[in-house]
Amino acid sequence: MDTSSSSEQLGIGKYLLKRLSEEGVGHIFGIPGDYIIYFYDQLVHSKIRHIGTTREDAAAFAADGYARCRGMGALAVTYGVGALNVVNAVAGAYAESSPVVVISGAPGVREQRSNSLLHHRFGPFTFQREIFERITCMTAVLDDPLIAFRQIDRALAAARLFSKPVYIELPRDMVDEKGYILPSEHLSEKESDPETLKEAVEETIRLLERADSPAVLAGLEIQRRGLQDSLVCLIERASLPVAATLTGKSVVGERHPAYFGVYEGAIGDEAARRLIEDADLLLMLGVTLNDVDTGIYTARLDPNRMVRAIQDEVIIRHHRFPQVYLKDFLSALGQAIAPRTVSFTAPPCGPSASGFPEAGRPMTVARLIGRLNQALTGEMLVVCDTGDCLFASVDLRVHERSEFLASSFYTTMGFAVPAALGAQVARPDLRPLVLVGDGAFQMTGTEISTIARLGINAIIIVFNNAGYSTERFIMDGSFNDISAWRFHRLSEVMGPMHGYDVHTEDEFEKALENAISEKHAPTIINVHLSKDDASPVMRRLARLLGERAQGG
Amino acid sequence: MDTSSSSEQLGIGKYLLKRLSEEGVGHIFGIPGDYIIYFYDQLVHSKIRHIGTTREDAAAFAADGYARCRGMGALAVTYGVGALNVVNAVAGAYAESSPVVVISGAPGVREQRSNSLLHHRFGPFTFQREIFERITCMTAVLDDPLIAFRQIDRALAAARLFSKPVYIELPRDMVDEKGYILPSEHLSEKESDPETLKEAVEETIRLLERADSPAVLAGLEIQRRGLQDSLVCLIERASLPVAATLTGKSVVGERHPAYFGVYEGAIGDEAARRLIEDADLLLMLGVTLNDVDTGIYTARLDPNRMVRAIQDEVIIRHHRFPQVYLKDFLSALGQAIAPRTVSFTAPPCGPSASGFPEAGRPMTVARLIGRLNQALTGEMLVVCDTGDCLFASVDLRVHERSEFLASSFYTTMGFAVPAALGAQVARPDLRPLVLVGDGAFQMTGTEISTIARLGINAIIIVFNNAGYSTERFIMDGSFNDISAWRFHRLSEVMGPMHGYDVHTEDEFEKALENAISEKHAPTIINVHLSKDDASPVMRRLARLLGERAQGG
Repeated sequence: MDTSSSSEQLGIGKYLLKRLSEEGVGHIFGIPGDYIIYFYDQLVHSKIRHIGTTREDAAAFAADGYARCRGMGALAVTYGVGALNVVNAVAGAYAESSPVVVISGAPGVREQRSNSLLHHRFGPFTFQREIFERITCMTAVLDDPLIAFRQIDRALAAARLFSKPVYIELPRDMVDEKGYILPSEHLSEKESDPETLKEAVEETIRLLERADSPAVLAGLEIQRRGLQDSLVCLIERASLPVAATLTGKSVVGERHPAYFGVYEGAIGDEAARRLIEDADLLLMLGVTLNDVDTGIYTARLDPNRMVRAIQDEVIIRHHRFPQVYLKDFLSALGQAIAPRTVSFTAPPCGPSASGFPEAGRPMTVARLIGRLNQALTGEMLVVCDTGDCLFASVDLRVHERSEFLASSFYTTMGFAVPAALGAQVARPDLRPLVLVGDGAFQMTGTEISTIARLGINAIIIVFNNAGYSTERFIMDGSFNDISAWRFHRLSEVMGPMHGYDVHTEDEFEKALENAISEKHAPTIINVHLSKDDASPVMRRLARLLGERAQGG
Repeated sequence: MDTSSSSEQLGIGKYLLKRLSEEGVGHIFGIPGDYIIYFYDQLVHSKIRHIGTTREDAAAFAADGYARCRGMGALAVTYGVGALNVVNAVAGAYAESSPVVVISGAPGVREQRSNSLLHHRFGPFTFQREIFERITCMTAVLDDPLIAFRQIDRALAAARLFSKPVYIELPRDMVDEKGYILPSEHLSEKESDPETLKEAVEETIRLLERADSPAVLAGLEIQRRGLQDSLVCLIERASLPVAATLTGKSVVGERHPAYFGVYEGAIGDEAARRLIEDADLLLMLGVTLNDVDTGIYTARLDPNRMVRAIQDEVIIRHHRFPQVYLKDFLSALGQAIAPRTVSFTAPPCGPSASGFPEAGRPMTVARLIGRLNQALTGEMLVVCDTGDCLFASVDLRVHERSEFLASSFYTTMGFAVPAALGAQVARPDLRPLVLVGDGAFQMTGTEISTIARLGINAIIIVFNNAGYSTERFIMDGSFNDISAWRFHRLSEVMGPMHGYDVHTEDEFEKALENAISEKHAPTIINVHLSKDDASPVMRRLARLLGERAQGG
């Protein structure tokens, strides 16, 4: 190893910025502090732009939204008080498979050696890393200039390969230390065993040829591994109808003629349920069998009629083809399958609110979703928070080349507004339509002030039903009531933005039209809904959760 | 062990509520979720009152403020998305020695056994506990009814004994399981070795008798161990002048005639510095030598003239008396010491703003603190956030039997507004005066809506200098700028509350007088300060931090 031959001897901070930039990271979110401030100084003098948020967790949600749109996102925070504030959002990115790079400052290596009681310290200096080891796929503490560049390379490669968060800790006296470029070895995806792959593809094709009503259920992993094009190839070539899981929603353009909607067992879309459960051969592609996607295990999926491809394995009926990777399987199947034209009729592209607006008619969840579905264009991105808006969004059909972003498996509240910030910074060509409940908005919605500061034009729809309505449907009590905020007045505090208070359809129509015509500021529409109103999915889900929660 | 003889067979949830109530916990803060909702149902049917907050971390800060005023505080949150949101606030309670009980719901034991991919899950079910093991002094997972009561007893005893947070995980199918009362064994403080104690006290008294200018420096541990009365006894009996550390601020009533102010090495109060550094014998009582209290190690304290009592040891010059506990040492010294009357002149009780208000004169940090110092009464509690308001607060003198609450060692931003909520709920006889910077307020200040909902009357002073001014003094850059909020307009969104926009002294005077006369609603006063203005402590601190941060 010749460490002296490196042509450019960068400092560790600058190398990290250079490598992030090469990975497509154009923005870093976060809040400065004295353990990270020297890195911030380098950041604002680099090609990457800093986006300050009001809170650190909002920076992490923003980086998550950014990562989902751009392949990688990053945040930079100070030690302790900064990093420990992002634990939930980063755990969410882990659970949802979003490649977020967490950069945390730390006391200097020399300061740590003397074991001083430094401010922001909460225990041994190793504890912060140990916490992040549980919510990331790789951690690196850059306390040795000799290997720091290599650690950075490996961490970024891991984030990309596993589509998970990584943690990089940068002690403040290491920011300017010169590092060494070591021989590079790319972490790369394992390769499928060719014989096993061939056998799995052949058996799948034989089954497909015999099937009368085959169907595809596409999940999250397709999106996270960037396999959308392979999927569309396959379904178009073989005329296969397709449904998506909730966590995989928008993995197929939802206005595609072969798309039937979101399948969620007994609680989801009925057309999608019939398609999937009545199929005589089901291709489950990149589907994770979690409680959300199976409609809390109400999915009726018969293994005897199933070909299931997950990240590293294909399972046909009850036999397994290990070491066959999803990417290879999709692509080989798409190439091997005989073109076929079968006609079937997918349901219409989501609901519409006919006759909307009716003057004076109170807003309901159903009519709201219907109207939004009509308003959606291919230039919009839907960012959805947790709560009834997520269940209601099952009926929204986003366009091809667009996206639907949500914390739909981890289901953390407070995701949407900051994630919309990150998404729009990542994809300025798309305009976020944000669906958020009143409770979730109270958690992180003040990030709308950052959106306003940047002069970008997210449209935020608050589903205001005066409390935690998902909980209400499981078990009601005073604990589900929250403070009443006049969300539409936030412009008074955090402008420039527009705000509308909406009770009726005509009020909503006017607000929505104004919001759409606004180009340089966010709009918040406070939609008052009855406490008893709810999406059909939530009614079914809450009933099931309530029945089961104590039964175990 | 006779497990069948327990007279009352309570469910685990009810037992936990009963024991918390016995420990003086009258309120639990937090947000419901489906893994904790059955416990919530029992909570609202118990003697303990639930206080909902906008975010989980605010619940933890509130519980911290409550614990500092009442000896123990508690919060209840759901699994994953709830619990992981409180990591920073709980780490802060750990670092600051505040006994906060974290109750987290969890998937049922039976659900966990099947290792299902349940929503809110982010890894193995053990990971959440492993994270909390790093920020609490004891963790307990109540998955076995046979021992659950005992685990609860031990956790609450540990919180009290060590004055640190504890973590209790309650799987949702265990809430109603009947538990068993096991023989109780109290965790108790170790006892001092009587011979060692006697020797330490005798040597200290000999040294005091020979000293011409003895002084006391009192720290955080005195407050956390509830030893304030012993301290006052000692200094009054022996006529000893006293200063406090910043983290120990208000450990002695700050209008006590023997009180000289806050000692912080070269960056703190000058009268206190002279008292402490010129003393020919210094009694350091319950002082932790962290970077904040030593003015980033600018304290000039000569071990040759020092008696230092820490939690479990007394150190005189260079020899140590192990197994002598602070509590015993203080009390034995107070009893053994000969009464003595020495006259000395403590400095005046903090600054006053003479001639305040001068019409049209722009507000400054110095005059603001001077005016607040005049306004303070014995019925007020000061709750201070991190930033220049904390450094400025060194000059504020809180009254006897009052409190000064801050995250002064861990220095997390966003502490004050939610902690004030908790403090006032715990001590309705005291009215919080909250000092908070504009950056910190953007993190958790929306908790003012909970304060407004409860109809309590905290007075919140926003030190608005348009950015992160502590960072600015270390290294300036665009990253220190934040969104401009019109804080005084928050009543438009989150009322009922009062808001005032203040640039000049006459405007402030009017706002403060109105705030003081308001009994049933919070007031927020948005005080505009120049970006270049700062407290003397911050100027000195920031200069030192800047010099040292990269030097290591």
